[in-house]
Amino acid sequence: MGRTSDARDRIVRKAARLFLTRSYDAVSVDELCAAADVRKGSFYHYFASKSELAAAVIDFHVEGLMARLTDLPGEDAAQRLHGVADAIGGIQDFFERRFGRVVGCPFGNLAAELSTVDDGLREHLAAAFARWQEEIAAVCRQAAADGVLRAGLDPDRFARSLLAQAQGQILLAKATGGSAADIPAALHELIDSSTREVAPR
Amino acid sequence: MGRTSDARDRIVRKAARLFLTRSYDAVSVDELCAAADVRKGSFYHYFASKSELAAAVIDFHVEGLMARLTDLPGEDAAQRLHGVADAIGGIQDFFERRFGRVVGCPFGNLAAELSTVDDGLREHLAAAFARWQEEIAAVCRQAAADGVLRAGLDPDRFARSLLAQAQGQILLAKATGGSAADIPAALHELIDSSTREVAPR
Repeated sequence: MGRTSDARDRIVRKAARLFLTRSYDAVSVDELCAAADVRKGSFYHYFASKSELAAAVIDFHVEGLMARLTDLPGEDAAQRLHGVADAIGGIQDFFERRFGRVVGCPFGNLAAELSTVDDGLREHLAAAFARWQEEIAAVCRQAAADGVLRAGLDPDRFARSLLAQAQGQILLAKATGGSAADIPAALHELIDSSTREVAPR
Repeated sequence: MGRTSDARDRIVRKAARLFLTRSYDAVSVDELCAAADVRKGSFYHYFASKSELAAAVIDFHVEGLMARLTDLPGEDAAQRLHGVADAIGGIQDFFERRFGRVVGCPFGNLAAELSTVDDGLREHLAAAFARWQEEIAAVCRQAAADGVLRAGLDPDRFARSLLAQAQGQILLAKATGGSAADIPAALHELIDSSTREVAPR
């Protein structure tokens, strides 16, 4: 028997996988316990509810996202903007190789399914999106300060637009059986058409 | 007792509302029957499965969407592009007034929840997205032919980008408790930054 913290980790990781490849409602606590090899009593020791587990799953994904979004490569803001596209593409490429298809965004999937039915989770997801958008916005503001962003584009609104484009492209790739590679391609195109030519990348 | 076709219509309309305000998996066939005031035998007379009902719900929404996307107002392609944004905004405004909040896109919600678990529904949704995208692409191609679309922008890829932007903005508004009015505003901005100034709108 592993340490107790292992059990919590196992539940979170199995739930992350099952929610992502199916949906939140489609996966029961019984199935989660079986997948993580824990008893139901143990599950409820760590999580008061399935909703609380979903919040922990969101935190788990935020950690993975932030690891990719901080320390973006590139010497200037335009390159770092393209680095945002590559980071999002990298996550989707990882999922596609692991699951054999585009399974969607962990945050987007849960937001679509649960925002109207679980206000606590909606707020948790809103906070995750806000952190994501803020990471992008920091790069956009630098791009604006460096004169890289096209005139008239507000950096914060453009950050929201990039995040929305990522969410939409991921969702469309998932629904249409598209390739993960299409997602960063579309983001690079939006960035190209929103920045001035400064230096070739 | 109404005509039999009334019962089928009632089931589809109630399902459309319940799926949109909650989710597909969260609403049982029993609840759908109660909401539509039909017996379970009657339900299965019209629909072999809940999945088949969801396909009918998608068709119902496609009809509503197409009614708004055809005959867009405007004398030129740029105005009609902005008309696409207004059409999408009009649907979201209707939902917000009816349900008191942004509840998401009927297609996007189902796609996020079901694409990985029901391949028949995924294909049905993919076809709906393809029709939607084609309606936008027709306007984009006209805009390109008229020299309204910025140089270097492929009209079909831009149509996909507009659809993705709509999906992403709707999802973010739903998750962050935003306003329906933010959605067309973001689309107008993307269209403005992707078209040349021809005439004030």
